[in-house]
Amino acid sequence: MLRLLPGRGKEKIKDALVTTDFTLEGIHFRRDWHPAESVGHRCLARGLSDIAAMGGDPVAAFLSLALPRDLPQTWVGRFARSLISLAERHGVTLAGGDMAESPNGILADIVVLGSVPKGKSVLRSGARPGDLIYVSGELGGSTAAVWEMRKRPKRKLSSRDYPRHFFPEPRTELGRILREKGLASAMIDTSDGLSTDLAHICEESGVGAEVEAELIPHATVGKPAREVDLQFALHGGEDYELLFTAPPGKRVPSRIAGIPITRIGQIRRGKQVILMNSSGVGYELHARGWEHFRR
Amino acid sequence: MLRLLPGRGKEKIKDALVTTDFTLEGIHFRRDWHPAESVGHRCLARGLSDIAAMGGDPVAAFLSLALPRDLPQTWVGRFARSLISLAERHGVTLAGGDMAESPNGILADIVVLGSVPKGKSVLRSGARPGDLIYVSGELGGSTAAVWEMRKRPKRKLSSRDYPRHFFPEPRTELGRILREKGLASAMIDTSDGLSTDLAHICEESGVGAEVEAELIPHATVGKPAREVDLQFALHGGEDYELLFTAPPGKRVPSRIAGIPITRIGQIRRGKQVILMNSSGVGYELHARGWEHFRR
Repeated sequence: MLRLLPGRGKEKIKDALVTTDFTLEGIHFRRDWHPAESVGHRCLARGLSDIAAMGGDPVAAFLSLALPRDLPQTWVGRFARSLISLAERHGVTLAGGDMAESPNGILADIVVLGSVPKGKSVLRSGARPGDLIYVSGELGGSTAAVWEMRKRPKRKLSSRDYPRHFFPEPRTELGRILREKGLASAMIDTSDGLSTDLAHICEESGVGAEVEAELIPHATVGKPAREVDLQFALHGGEDYELLFTAPPGKRVPSRIAGIPITRIGQIRRGKQVILMNSSGVGYELHARGWEHFRR
Repeated sequence: MLRLLPGRGKEKIKDALVTTDFTLEGIHFRRDWHPAESVGHRCLARGLSDIAAMGGDPVAAFLSLALPRDLPQTWVGRFARSLISLAERHGVTLAGGDMAESPNGILADIVVLGSVPKGKSVLRSGARPGDLIYVSGELGGSTAAVWEMRKRPKRKLSSRDYPRHFFPEPRTELGRILREKGLASAMIDTSDGLSTDLAHICEESGVGAEVEAELIPHATVGKPAREVDLQFALHGGEDYELLFTAPPGKRVPSRIAGIPITRIGQIRRGKQVILMNSSGVGYELHARGWEHFRR
């Protein structure tokens, strides 16, 4: 597939952002667990979230899709409609892609192109000792759904009870506002989980961090609704919230673009990431990777 | 994967070109037929050829790769070195990508970004009645290799005897020269085969065509070397030559950037594509799709 994106004559010089993400059946989703609409939504949400984490504006998406010969056409329609609907809500054109026959399972690869005013993108490397650490929304909701599905593989979860797993909303507007107002010194999305993503910021900025366990916003999931455990909020991935740092002098509102913003800690000198419990006892927070759906 | 491509302050306004192409084991290649070096080369060649067919300059490539758990690391190294070597020869940066575990077989998706001066890209829709039709290089060589491998699945073909199949060379420089000199009125690469790709130009330009069978350059393949049949030259895909039209007043050299250029016919009014044989008898040339390696 080949596509022409016309340049505009009067625009300011911008930096281009490019993200590419696989969505593979059996690795990133299971057809018996995830409705087609969820697969299409999550496929695009990953790339949009990456662009948001740099404070960029998503511009165009390209979908490469390889489908097994026996896949019902209705599945593809539901997948595509959901993906396109998310694209439209975020002002993104689905500009093309590639189609192929898959030898095994559904394979998708999505490319999202974004732009950001030259030199203004928010990087992972900008955190400085003393900066405060913030996170948007709530954490651990997506992994809590995976946990439930693994425990009871035959039972279908309702996406209404676990919206942040089945239909995560990328924080496009929040990312743009944080960049425009110059609030965030470093930013990342929580695709791998707080412990891993904070470690990325610390490594790339050459700093350490101290996180207060009792400040971390735990997601509410399920029916009846309940808060997820601290372990989910600390290590669970695919929530697609924004994790950012801001210099202590900046006033960060407690809600931006309708999304709650919570201060959870502070950047420190050194390399260690410390988790402080409510008694003031600290221990090292190790980055724990996020697992996929491999059967 | 997320990547920042910095904008350059003084460049002229350009149009962006984006291509994405899957390379799937069992569909686009077979591990017992194709050395890892060939798979890596062909993976990138497809996208480079698409950019060349619009007269664009390739800029950056993004590789998404999903690999089975048991794939030897040496395979990946050979694949990557070959792909990177082709990228370097064409002035392209391998700027990033995505890695995942594949549930079945090797899966690659490559994105190539290119650029072309604003409004100057060569489209498929520019052919006008009276324009002459040209093709670069020779046709049918890639499909002849597939035919041989299907006939004798146990015998390994030497890539030296079938270079246009195993290591097709995208016509980057030729495409750029044709655009710069304003020679091509319409252009496409022969990824699907002459009959199909000429039909694309005719449909998008709203014209017909007349092709002279005896002018078509047949590829030379194998050992001892022999010319491929007309059917391969007409319908065989994945040669990645450039098929283009030029107004009759333009002088098109018989060799550009070292590559032979052959006039094979002329654009006509109407919708039909006619193949004229050496006796001057014409019959309609139907587009015949290109088949992949499905077992």
